[in-house]
Amino acid sequence: MKKLSTILTVSAILILSSCSPSGEHRQPTVAADPLPSWNEGATKQSIMDFVTRVTDPASPGFVPEAERIATFDNDGTLWAEQPLYFQLFFAIDRVKALAPEHPEWETQQPFKAVIEDDLEALVASGKRGLLELIMATHAGMTTDEFARIATTWLESTRHPTSGRPFTDMVYQPMLEVLDYLRAHSFKTYIVSAGGIEFMRPWTEEVYGIPPEQVVGSSIKTSFEIRDNGSVLMRLPEIDFIDDKAAKPVAINSHIGRRPIAAFGNSDGDLQMLQYATGGDHPGFALIVHHDDAEREWAYDRESHIGRLDKALEEATAKGWTVVSMRDDWRRIFPWN
Amino acid sequence: MKKLSTILTVSAILILSSCSPSGEHRQPTVAADPLPSWNEGATKQSIMDFVTRVTDPASPGFVPEAERIATFDNDGTLWAEQPLYFQLFFAIDRVKALAPEHPEWETQQPFKAVIEDDLEALVASGKRGLLELIMATHAGMTTDEFARIATTWLESTRHPTSGRPFTDMVYQPMLEVLDYLRAHSFKTYIVSAGGIEFMRPWTEEVYGIPPEQVVGSSIKTSFEIRDNGSVLMRLPEIDFIDDKAAKPVAINSHIGRRPIAAFGNSDGDLQMLQYATGGDHPGFALIVHHDDAEREWAYDRESHIGRLDKALEEATAKGWTVVSMRDDWRRIFPWN
Repeated sequence: MKKLSTILTVSAILILSSCSPSGEHRQPTVAADPLPSWNEGATKQSIMDFVTRVTDPASPGFVPEAERIATFDNDGTLWAEQPLYFQLFFAIDRVKALAPEHPEWETQQPFKAVIEDDLEALVASGKRGLLELIMATHAGMTTDEFARIATTWLESTRHPTSGRPFTDMVYQPMLEVLDYLRAHSFKTYIVSAGGIEFMRPWTEEVYGIPPEQVVGSSIKTSFEIRDNGSVLMRLPEIDFIDDKAAKPVAINSHIGRRPIAAFGNSDGDLQMLQYATGGDHPGFALIVHHDDAEREWAYDRESHIGRLDKALEEATAKGWTVVSMRDDWRRIFPWN
Repeated sequence: MKKLSTILTVSAILILSSCSPSGEHRQPTVAADPLPSWNEGATKQSIMDFVTRVTDPASPGFVPEAERIATFDNDGTLWAEQPLYFQLFFAIDRVKALAPEHPEWETQQPFKAVIEDDLEALVASGKRGLLELIMATHAGMTTDEFARIATTWLESTRHPTSGRPFTDMVYQPMLEVLDYLRAHSFKTYIVSAGGIEFMRPWTEEVYGIPPEQVVGSSIKTSFEIRDNGSVLMRLPEIDFIDDKAAKPVAINSHIGRRPIAAFGNSDGDLQMLQYATGGDHPGFALIVHHDDAEREWAYDRESHIGRLDKALEEATAKGWTVVSMRDDWRRIFPWN
């Protein structure tokens, strides 16, 4: 991410916007471009063709409104995931805050790596290690208390390279896809390996996706009666890791319908994309390929975070839509 | 359930309806009774008072639309559960169909009881035993195949005493509550110990509750790639039993919000009612008490099915709404 190029891009967009006939002053009879941050081309067209195919009543691929389910991965698909999964920054801050109560963490990975600021060792502990770290630091409070802790952290912490709130690190083109699908009566869901209760407090405001449409990894909870009411306590035990082949399982459990469109960016999303395209309806699968080292980050087959290897092979073999962030996205973030 | 009394009740309702000024011919300026199958009285009033309290913007108990979550138990709350849970009739038919492939069932409970038509031994095996029976007979096919099997069975099988389709054995007064709440922007959910995939194929048509708003017990599933697509296989392993203290846990997992209203009929619903009434909002809890041996069934503290004991104590202590089916419901089923 280079700041100069960002500034140039922002300037270019501002100039383009002020000259453009599109926008609020347009005649209402002219159809607005629903995906203004997408460059014209095959990628953008594939999204619009799919929506037309399943929503035009005269189309053989027409899908009734109730069955228009679209599922989105979060990390790397709706918001950025570099230099670390954002929830991991949260977990790191929690580990440091809780470390005085946990002397055993000084010798125990991945906690040791966190306390010693050894990000390389942390990333090397893998997705499952990272999830365990997250789970271990997210327990011991009620669900309501956890939502408050997560919200407070998100409001007070900034992304290390952009200096922006983490909720600003969302992809403008994907926000447009969410809106576009919902305008065509799709129900949009998040299906992420991220913590379900870490996402739910803010997804409605940021993505327009309410808590009940967020699916993610979880730790166990226990129902308890208190003097002044009842609570769910968060237990230090993993309940479900919503990644790879578990994504279709979680989709079936939470939604009970097969999605007809799925959006991901890594091998962790492969099975979700296979599920969306493996049914009777014409399914749509899209992969966001991080290939823009100038405006965002470039990584795929060798990355510890958001590794994209097998899913890229399958996308090519199956003709899925692969988004080049560099070529297909006019802008990356809403503040560009 | 006595047929003569049913006929008399039906006749009385038909006579009353034809004399009544309410109905479709009313002037649109006169507010319709949203709960016409409920007799006037404290029970009906408590429902309407609650809805007014949380939906009137001037009320101190006002709740924003997005937080108006209402959860309903299914067996004994939305539809009948006698002489056995209806899903158990389905399981019984499945056991008999599959028995030739399972010689070990001849000596193994609760399968032995099913094969020998020993309903008493079956009921005595308890809710958990019954659930295990259900789970064991519901595996070995894809989720799509299971939905078709369940749908076919529901369409072709009749309730043993009423001779009606099982989906006719739903409570008209509760259908009206569902509609009434939805008309006031509540989102209505089923949270049942019944099988989630047994309910989902029909709850939208019967209750207006779509699959994604159905929460229930589940067996594990496994994602598999097939030549012509992808499927979820149902495995003979219990994943989650959505009963008692697990109901708040499942509500949090699936919905991510605390309900402000909950409806049940047995001790299996107690924790869900405690959860709905244990938060910051004014929560509403309602128990359907089966005390109408004439028109339905009468059972509570001693029943193997739908035991209502502790929850009835707590309802009295906490001032929850307890519905007397005999006194509060003008009619029971839609076809009365």
